[in-house]
Amino acid sequence: MFPKFHGILSPVVTPFRDDLSPDPPRFVEHCEWLLSQGVGLAVFGTNSEANSLSVAEREFLLETALLGGVSPARMMPGTGCCSLTDTVELTRHAVAAGCAGVLMLPPFYYKAISDDGLFRFYSEVIQRVGSEKLRLYLYHIPPVARISITAGLIERLLRAYPGTIAGIKDSSGDWDNTAMLLENFQPAGFDVFCGSDVFLLQTLRGGGTGCITATGNVNPAMIHDLYQNWQAPDADARQARVTGIRRTFETIPLIASMKAVIGWKRNHPQWAKVRPPLLEAPQDKFEQLRARLDEIGFRMEL
Amino acid sequence: MFPKFHGILSPVVTPFRDDLSPDPPRFVEHCEWLLSQGVGLAVFGTNSEANSLSVAEREFLLETALLGGVSPARMMPGTGCCSLTDTVELTRHAVAAGCAGVLMLPPFYYKAISDDGLFRFYSEVIQRVGSEKLRLYLYHIPPVARISITAGLIERLLRAYPGTIAGIKDSSGDWDNTAMLLENFQPAGFDVFCGSDVFLLQTLRGGGTGCITATGNVNPAMIHDLYQNWQAPDADARQARVTGIRRTFETIPLIASMKAVIGWKRNHPQWAKVRPPLLEAPQDKFEQLRARLDEIGFRMEL
Repeated sequence: MFPKFHGILSPVVTPFRDDLSPDPPRFVEHCEWLLSQGVGLAVFGTNSEANSLSVAEREFLLETALLGGVSPARMMPGTGCCSLTDTVELTRHAVAAGCAGVLMLPPFYYKAISDDGLFRFYSEVIQRVGSEKLRLYLYHIPPVARISITAGLIERLLRAYPGTIAGIKDSSGDWDNTAMLLENFQPAGFDVFCGSDVFLLQTLRGGGTGCITATGNVNPAMIHDLYQNWQAPDADARQARVTGIRRTFETIPLIASMKAVIGWKRNHPQWAKVRPPLLEAPQDKFEQLRARLDEIGFRMEL
Repeated sequence: MFPKFHGILSPVVTPFRDDLSPDPPRFVEHCEWLLSQGVGLAVFGTNSEANSLSVAEREFLLETALLGGVSPARMMPGTGCCSLTDTVELTRHAVAAGCAGVLMLPPFYYKAISDDGLFRFYSEVIQRVGSEKLRLYLYHIPPVARISITAGLIERLLRAYPGTIAGIKDSSGDWDNTAMLLENFQPAGFDVFCGSDVFLLQTLRGGGTGCITATGNVNPAMIHDLYQNWQAPDADARQARVTGIRRTFETIPLIASMKAVIGWKRNHPQWAKVRPPLLEAPQDKFEQLRARLDEIGFRMEL
């Protein structure tokens, strides 16, 4: 098996053609660039618009990336869906492809679901996939999924599947929750990734493993650099610069702003396309963002 | 084209085998029984655990029902998914199968989505399906989807696609919203269905078209009877009986309680199975429910 993930991963944004079909060559190009910047590939995450894709579209993109030479050792595909059968299918596919891990949303349609129900869901998936090669990272993102991965659920899953449950991405936006995870679970080798680069330094100082962060798509080198130099005397200043760039991107909804900026930097405006229900960045706001990014000296080394 | 729906429809609960695969013969049997009770088939709704199924599983069940002789004139499949491509696929399939309508959830993964984004989603689906035979009912269920179908969105969709946008199921649980829909949209032929039989009489008195209701799965004749006799002198007493039965079922989460009762009445306990993240009714609570249903003289004429 590949070594466990550490450091920075990016939920890889998914490029679309004019007809909103995924664009495999540009997807592979972006994956290769991210790897060249030191950043791993959490393909099919929230910022990838993965839930706006079909199962077949996700599998096709993953196959394309592998054929394009992208290493499965650096890939952590998102495989959690509302449907048990879809989740099993995508997870099996990722394991068969040799991916070093998967990032699994809880089923997110029904609300007010108990830990018993979520435990049963994850159990069914793990048992149906039935592979010792499965390395499963839980995906806690209550602001979007409106379903929580609680400490009690993690404990039960770790007891039942100690070789499989590998860690968590905490996208709660709530530092207290990340701190709780770092204290209670990281020491036993359950790897805690914060869900935003804003928390990277705090997470590393707390013993965490790294960060899976949207802006890894546009600012990977600087974030990776902070990861590598988190004990440097100027670490806080580095974190401030990383955070400043994220806040600038956040002046437009993040998926739209990142895709528009990639389109600008690659001189390929089609990159800006998003699938509904999302909307592209409005032109006037994008102009403001671009001006601000130039002002603060933002660069993408393509 | 088939006449538009009116009266009572049931979000058909989906029977599973021990391995949690859908059970087509029992599904068809239940559909036929519901039709015999005067109730139409909103297959693949929230209470059908539709989002816990794959696209292929839904299409297979629909095909099985058609092969089993169930009329598409009485079927309103749920086809709304997070994914644009899945939604288009299921909607095309339902239209090709001749279904008299579809019930479409908004894409429900991303939150805080604008009316512009939802309009664009529904537009893309309608244009891609590209059929004059498409009759689309909007599905407003904010307690679960955490996305709302607003009056402004309905207006825009009606203006853009007047021959396609046929009505709405309002599962907000908020009578003020249903009243607003009845006042603003029903007079122009946009059909308003309340999402619970608790509101049936109020909806019909307000000029509404009918009700798409979970407990149509277990209490169809009595609810249909209320629909047919809503102007009778004892209509309020009939509504009170209907509501009483619903409240009794609601002592356990509704999907689990209805499936357990169907299993009891059909002497086929496998009916009780649900897919995770849902859980079956606990035995003790089910015994209490059963005793209470006997006490109030609840019957299913199978």
